[in-house]
Amino acid sequence: MHQATYTGDRTVLVRPCAAVPPAAGQVRIDVAFTGICGTDLHILHGAMDARVSPPTVLGHEMSGRIAEVGAGVTGWQRGDPVTVMPTASCGDCPACGAGHTHLCHRLDFLGIDSAGAMQNSWTVPAELLVRLPEGLRLDRAALVEPTAVAVHDVRRCALAADEQAVVVGAGPVGVLIALVARRVGADVLVVEPDAHRRSTAEKLGLACIDPSVTDVVAAVESRTGGAGAAVAFEVSGAAAGAASAVACLRARGRLVLVAIHPTPREVDLHRFFQRELTLLGARLYHREDFEEAVRLLAAGEIPVDGLVSRIEPLARADAAFAALDSGALDSGALDSGAGVMKVLVDCRPTDGTESA
Amino acid sequence: MHQATYTGDRTVLVRPCAAVPPAAGQVRIDVAFTGICGTDLHILHGAMDARVSPPTVLGHEMSGRIAEVGAGVTGWQRGDPVTVMPTASCGDCPACGAGHTHLCHRLDFLGIDSAGAMQNSWTVPAELLVRLPEGLRLDRAALVEPTAVAVHDVRRCALAADEQAVVVGAGPVGVLIALVARRVGADVLVVEPDAHRRSTAEKLGLACIDPSVTDVVAAVESRTGGAGAAVAFEVSGAAAGAASAVACLRARGRLVLVAIHPTPREVDLHRFFQRELTLLGARLYHREDFEEAVRLLAAGEIPVDGLVSRIEPLARADAAFAALDSGALDSGALDSGAGVMKVLVDCRPTDGTESA
Repeated sequence: MHQATYTGDRTVLVRPCAAVPPAAGQVRIDVAFTGICGTDLHILHGAMDARVSPPTVLGHEMSGRIAEVGAGVTGWQRGDPVTVMPTASCGDCPACGAGHTHLCHRLDFLGIDSAGAMQNSWTVPAELLVRLPEGLRLDRAALVEPTAVAVHDVRRCALAADEQAVVVGAGPVGVLIALVARRVGADVLVVEPDAHRRSTAEKLGLACIDPSVTDVVAAVESRTGGAGAAVAFEVSGAAAGAASAVACLRARGRLVLVAIHPTPREVDLHRFFQRELTLLGARLYHREDFEEAVRLLAAGEIPVDGLVSRIEPLARADAAFAALDSGALDSGALDSGAGVMKVLVDCRPTDGTESA
Repeated sequence: MHQATYTGDRTVLVRPCAAVPPAAGQVRIDVAFTGICGTDLHILHGAMDARVSPPTVLGHEMSGRIAEVGAGVTGWQRGDPVTVMPTASCGDCPACGAGHTHLCHRLDFLGIDSAGAMQNSWTVPAELLVRLPEGLRLDRAALVEPTAVAVHDVRRCALAADEQAVVVGAGPVGVLIALVARRVGADVLVVEPDAHRRSTAEKLGLACIDPSVTDVVAAVESRTGGAGAAVAFEVSGAAAGAASAVACLRARGRLVLVAIHPTPREVDLHRFFQRELTLLGARLYHREDFEEAVRLLAAGEIPVDGLVSRIEPLARADAAFAALDSGALDSGALDSGAGVMKVLVDCRPTDGTESA
């Protein structure tokens, strides 16, 4: 078998390896598809070298089938379609103690802190498994993880039907947030400077504006009778995007901070005071977000096919990264570069023993 | 009669004027005491010249007795002890329409946008009156307004009993927040570099640390078993204060932004993401906050006597401002300069016809 590893120095190498037999409490998964996330690109760019220890296997958005079940694991058997919630928490830090296991102070994020899913076979704790229905295609199921992010973000602000929401940044996570927000019944406006991404969002029926030609605040005020938006999702990672998200909110509006801003960012705190805005940091997901994401994808309520720009075989994982890297991704967006949306790596053996 | 006016150029002039007879729906109040707020100092410093039109009568923290009742005003009579909620909202902007009248897009803040209370006699709409109980001394009642700010701020974050709260900045508003938070049952730690202010807070039984000698994050972690604080109130207006308030919060902690930061401030958004922090802008108050503040002061549950550093007669209003101005107030704190707490102006006629 093979695995795609980040070896430092902006390099992804696909190299042979041995499958890891599952220990007690673990399962081994035949991986079907693994998506590439903006975080993976950050790792490739060396931005996370303080946390990542190369060589490390990348990938935390995946789908597959159980290949082997370790001792003491019940409820799962070979062949079950699954995805993995890639967050192993310690269980005894203050965050875990308060029930916020996804904010664990010692979180082991699979694919960053330990081996990820971009390999033919992945061995993980059974407690991280999330069951997939047989009817959900495995290429679509590779988008459960980013969809769970979107579900979490929409829940984080308690978005209500008929509220007006602005999504700043239309990479995969931004579009998924917009789709989940629309499912909730919100009126959604997407702000995105890249024409390809706007086009992708528009094909999904989302209203979009280009902030390089349209004044975002004026557009939102016009759409909301002068009030401003109830909720803005900052998914751009850019200074201008964050500023727009703050400026377009109504009195008591909520800003959900989804994108990563690695260095301190100038924020108009006076606007937070003046309109009593709320900023909500949002990170990862709970298990119920994952399960809701599976449900939404399986029911076809979130149409994700339009989000997949490209599928590359594992042997060409480096090309998959290069495709994403063609955009100028120097921001903290969780999403990949401009001109392309989601790229999947097909991790099935090339003899075709597993099908989507 | 006389009034203290800001005439531009860092000047407060006490000048003679005529009492304004109450129109329909108005009352005229014999003012007893008017407090000086950090905002008044900002006006004096010219920082609000874009909003203020000199000459303007300052003052929005006050107490007094009704002197004259205009046509159509019911429920009030001459002699009633009152304070005034100095916020006149328009009633038809989007914020008012959503019930957030204190965030009115066209808010008339008495003492900033129109004539304030630093005069012997003040004529205001009767709908802004808040009744005082006879048992509440009028010098103490001049602190109802800043106490209402504190009540509002503590409510804004839904502070719960046994939660750990950090108050950054121990001017009058910071100390009032700490006292209200303690009433709620929270464990409160005050962070204040000024020795006089720490001493004032400590005399009220509040635990204090000096951030110039004690590491705030380490102190909070030590006090909270490594978790961090559930709530931080940023009342300093300083960059370092805001940074401490963000850094000391636990997973899902809430930062209440009380101080005014007039220019964009660098904020560690990564920490907001990493711990899913919430930032809550907090401004002014609702009527129920005012009424709760009256109740707390009347019942002696918030001991405010220790907060009043000095009382000057109206004729010496300039000296009252100078006393406050002795601190280096270049931050956006709602509170006045270091080394002094609340300064009141005694607006009663010097013939002593009104007593506290």
